[in-house]
This record gives sequence, C-alpha cells and structure tokens, in this order.
Amino acid sequence: MSRFLCERYTELVPYTPGEQPRDRKYIKLNTNESPYPPSPKAQLAAAQAAAELQLYPDPTCDALTREIAALCGVTPDQVLVTNGSDEILNFAFMAFCDTNHPAAFPNITYGFYSVFAALNGVEYREIPLDTEFKVRPADYAGLSHTIFIANPNAPTGLALTPAQVEEILQQNPDRVVVIDEAYVDFGAESCVPLIQRYDNLLVTQTFSKSRSMAGARLGFGVGNRELIADLNRIKYATNPYNINRMTMAAGLGVLADEAYTRCHCLEVAQTRQQTAAALQAMGFTLTDSVTNFLFARHSDYDGESLYRHLKSDGILVRHFNKPGIDEYVRITIGTPEEMQALLQSLRRLLEG
Amino acid sequence: MSRFLCERYTELVPYTPGEQPRDRKYIKLNTNESPYPPSPKAQLAAAQAAAELQLYPDPTCDALTREIAALCGVTPDQVLVTNGSDEILNFAFMAFCDTNHPAAFPNITYGFYSVFAALNGVEYREIPLDTEFKVRPADYAGLSHTIFIANPNAPTGLALTPAQVEEILQQNPDRVVVIDEAYVDFGAESCVPLIQRYDNLLVTQTFSKSRSMAGARLGFGVGNRELIADLNRIKYATNPYNINRMTMAAGLGVLADEAYTRCHCLEVAQTRQQTAAALQAMGFTLTDSVTNFLFARHSDYDGESLYRHLKSDGILVRHFNKPGIDEYVRITIGTPEEMQALLQSLRRLLEG
Repeated sequence: MSRFLCERYTELVPYTPGEQPRDRKYIKLNTNESPYPPSPKAQLAAAQAAAELQLYPDPTCDALTREIAALCGVTPDQVLVTNGSDEILNFAFMAFCDTNHPAAFPNITYGFYSVFAALNGVEYREIPLDTEFKVRPADYAGLSHTIFIANPNAPTGLALTPAQVEEILQQNPDRVVVIDEAYVDFGAESCVPLIQRYDNLLVTQTFSKSRSMAGARLGFGVGNRELIADLNRIKYATNPYNINRMTMAAGLGVLADEAYTRCHCLEVAQTRQQTAAALQAMGFTLTDSVTNFLFARHSDYDGESLYRHLKSDGILVRHFNKPGIDEYVRITIGTPEEMQALLQSLRRLLEG
Repeated sequence: MSRFLCERYTELVPYTPGEQPRDRKYIKLNTNESPYPPSPKAQLAAAQAAAELQLYPDPTCDALTREIAALCGVTPDQVLVTNGSDEILNFAFMAFCDTNHPAAFPNITYGFYSVFAALNGVEYREIPLDTEFKVRPADYAGLSHTIFIANPNAPTGLALTPAQVEEILQQNPDRVVVIDEAYVDFGAESCVPLIQRYDNLLVTQTFSKSRSMAGARLGFGVGNRELIADLNRIKYATNPYNINRMTMAAGLGVLADEAYTRCHCLEVAQTRQQTAAALQAMGFTLTDSVTNFLFARHSDYDGESLYRHLKSDGILVRHFNKPGIDEYVRITIGTPEEMQALLQSLRRLLEG
C-alpha cells in the first residue's frame, strides 16, 4: 500500500477469482466456464472486427443492445450492455445504494456482492439461507435495503420461481431488487418479463456461461427505462466505450446462433443430471442445482480434502473456506468426458 | 431518472464522446483515432484468441503486463493494464482523491477529468493555461491537490518536458501527480523513466492512438509498485477480468510489431507537419502540436462555422463550445489523402 491511498480503501478486501494455475494442464471445473467453444459465428465476427480496431467502438452499443432487447422481448431502452455482468452489478451498487440505502443479499451467494458494497462504502446485511440452502422470500419482506439475489444462487445452484421473486418485489416497492441471472439459461425461469410490471426490478445476465463467452466480458441488465437511464448515466461517467469492437461483434455473432446456445445448454443440463446421479450413487449429497455446476459434499470427506484430492489428480473444482459450506465443493459441469474423469478420481478416493 | 437513483448522482453530467453519426460516410477527423488499421499481428492474435472465449481471461494479465514492462523499461509490478486508459484514470481518482484530497488539472484539458471527479464526489480546481495555451509548472507548486496533467495536453497538443514535469513532482512530494500520456508517441518525451525516482508519479498511456487499437480498449499505468498495488486493489474490487482475451492477444500482437507502430507514428507526424504548413499558408493559426491532431483557428471564421462547413463536406472535426477555445477546431491527423480533402474543403470556404 502506498502512503497516498485514500483511507476509505485501506481496508478494502478485493474479490478473489477462481485459481488459474499454470503449473500443469488441469481439467478446469472451478470457474463455471462452458466446456464448449463459442459459436463459430461469434469467432468469425470477432475476427472480422479485429480488422477495424483503429476506430472506437460504438459507445451506445446500438446493434447489440437491439438484439439483446429482441432476445428478451423488451425495448432497447430497457437494456444496458456492460463489460461482464460484474460491471452492471457494480453500477447498480453505485446507483442504488448509499449510506441511507444499504444493501441486502443472502449470506451464501456470489462473493462479489460484499466486495462491491465495500468498494462503494455501502453497509450490507447478509440474510441467512434456510437449512436447505434456500432463499426464503419472507426473509426479504419490507426491508429498507437494496436487494441483490443471484437466481439461481451460487454456489448452491438453487432458484426461486418468478412468483417468489414477485413476492420480494411487492414487499419492497420502494427499493431496487437486482436479480442476477448469470446461470438462468441452464434450467431456471427468467424474471425478465416482470420488468414490465415492477419499476424496482433490475435483471442482470451474462454471456459468460451459456454463451461460452467468459473470455469476451459481456453482460447486460434489463429493467424499466428509468433504471436503465440511471445506469447509463453511471456508464457514461465511468467508461463510455466499455464494450470493445471484438466483444460487440462476438455478441452479435452468438445471438445470430441461438440454436447453438440452446443445444449446449441442453447438453450441460443433461451432463449435470448424469453426473449428479453418479455422485449420489457414490454417497454424495447434492443440492438440486439448475445451473452449470453442482454443489456436493460427502460425509467421509470435508470439502478441502475433496478439493485437494481432485487437484492432485489434475482436476480443479472450487472450495469455499466459509462456515456453512466448507463441507462442499462446487463442481462446474464440463464435457461428459471431463465428468467421467472427475467421477473416476472420486471413486479412487472413496475406494481408498 | 428513476426515483431510486442515489442523490449523489442526480446532478452528474456524463462525458460526451465525440459524435459518431451514421447518416453518411464521413472522413472521421474528430476522435483522434489512427487512420491506419492495427498491425496484422494484432489482428491475427485477436482472431486466434476468439477460439477460446469460453475461458475467462487471465485476471493478472501476466503476459501482456510483462511485455509492457519490457517496452517501458520497468518491472511488471510497476505496470497495471486497464480497459482503456479511462479505466486507470478513474481508478486513480478513486484511489488518490477524496474529500480531503481534491483534484487539480488545467482548465483546458481532457474533458473526462472533471467527470471522474464528479463521479467520485471529489472537488476539483481548474488551473488556467497561460495565454499561449501552455501549462505553467509554477502554477502547480505546493498544491494540496492530486494533480492530473495530460502531456501532451488535449486539445492543445502542447507538451511539457520531463524536466518541467519533474518540477511539478518535486513541488508536490506528498500528492500523486498523474501524467496522462495518451498522445506521447507522436513527438513528445515520456515521463516513464521518472517513476524510478518519484514515488508520487503515475504515468498512463493507451493503445488507442499510436497502436491503432481504440476499438480494443487497452490502456495502462506505470508507477512505483506501491501505487500500482493500490490501483490493483481497486481493480480486483471492481472488475478483476477487466481485459478480455481478444484485447489481451491483440495487445501482445501489436507489441511484437513495434516497427509497425513506429512507422505509423512517423507517418502521422509527417502528415501533421505538412498539414500544419498548408493551414498556416491559408491563414490559420495553430498551436505547435506534437500529437496526432492539430488545434487551429482562422480569424475570419469561428470554430463552430469551421466545424459546420467541414461537416457539410463530409468531414468531421471536433469543436468544443467552451470559452477560450471556441474559436478553434481540433483536427485529427488522418491519411495524407484525408488531409488533402480537408484542405480542399477549407480552401473552398476561404475562397468563398
């Protein structure tokens, strides 16, 4: 730390991304990436865009915004495209939280919410999940907080129904409710249609998971036009050219290939079900994940041991050293072959 | 504006990017882009990276950071790579300015500094240029402010020498001085070597101009390792994956082709000199720009008229409707052919 750093950041603890070791080639099941390459249409469009890098990208992201709006069944002024969904989540913390408007989110959820809160000097309340790791809508009734809910939640993989989200929206009409749908495409129902009826709803999504574009950094938010205008105000005061030309082109390319996305989401869901069944047969306990990852524990091994064993076998999963979930590992759904390797490694462990 | 927007942003006036009209094909001399495409090595590397978009980019930007460090003659821990230099400028406002540490910058300079200050709730002082549009180092002596100086400055195109910057650094040993070198490669001298002797110096640069990569969003900062550690703390609490895979690859590609960059910088400087001479012969007054743009006025026409005339001829330049510089237009250096078109259009105007 330098002697110049402002006091408000001296205690700031940044987010820790999943490890990306380079000492050997791992089967990467630790950061919820897609095991499939991006659509060839996305690759081609990005490559073509690389020929015109001398020109700034369109700061309004007009073409991409319109395609996302069409995908979501909303109007373009109800959409804001961002540099990953992390960017729109941070914009939402900036726009809708302050000392008078603290944040609230589940005590077990995406680890970046508490970092965004700290970054922006916003107090936050962590609301416990129930004993089955579920978000209970009743716990969010009448809060004076801006609410952030990952739905499906991470690392649990469990989702609220839109009706349950609606209950939270109705109970908090004067505060913004952000529904982070990073994992929605693998088996949950989106709350996007609710934005037409609730002016306090912001839904965020990402191209990182279901569209195989984690490496491109592309996310977006959907909400009523006034909320989006607020977030645009922050964007144009932060980084007007937040989306580069290649990512913009890749986004348009993948949206022109929805069949590719749908097909891979179904493959991931199928692999998830097969892997879950195999793990249960081996004595693992799992949440009923509707995402591209499983959340699993075994009564004979703690999460750390499972993580270490798999890593020694060249397989990376994610372990959170946090009370309540430290027995678990989060396992990204890879290809069927990668999941076979995982299962074989775990069988070797259990058979000792 | 929604009823949810926090009060601190309700008066925020965002940055206005240069216009990007799509009603016709313009000769774009309004946003200081390079007229040359990016290096073929950058294009190829970006296209190859598009095949692996399913994986997150390296959050540490390790390979690119090391190459930039080598280019600058510093160590990797003295470099932070960002999503355009706008991102590192905002990080610097966040890290080194607060209510007790206001900002100071020239009254005529890059328009985003005042926006970043407003975004972060930071007071700022605008220090007048002298009557020749020059930054006077003596005006910055012993400020209690964090100082931001574009060097060369925009839209004037004029540069301080490193010795003059050193004077400012010595006069403000307890405040950070940010030297924004977006345009340094076209004829000014970089202050990067000074970071080894001044722990209060942060130099920022961009790949947007001299490296023809405005569309890729790539910038960086160079400073002593403690300053860089502070900025990294902000980065990892804001957007750890701030650089996407394609931009990272394109950056490595262009750095492997320094001859291409040097060659185009020389071409731009040569075209600038030829254009400046032609404009002077037509009665224009110009600053002695060392950048990839000219700052010009004509006693018979105000800046707005020049801008409008050129636009009607399909040529975009930038006019700033601001006291002190509203007589001027800022003209980006394009190809020799584009500058001929500009000169012909202006001749038609002057010859009535």
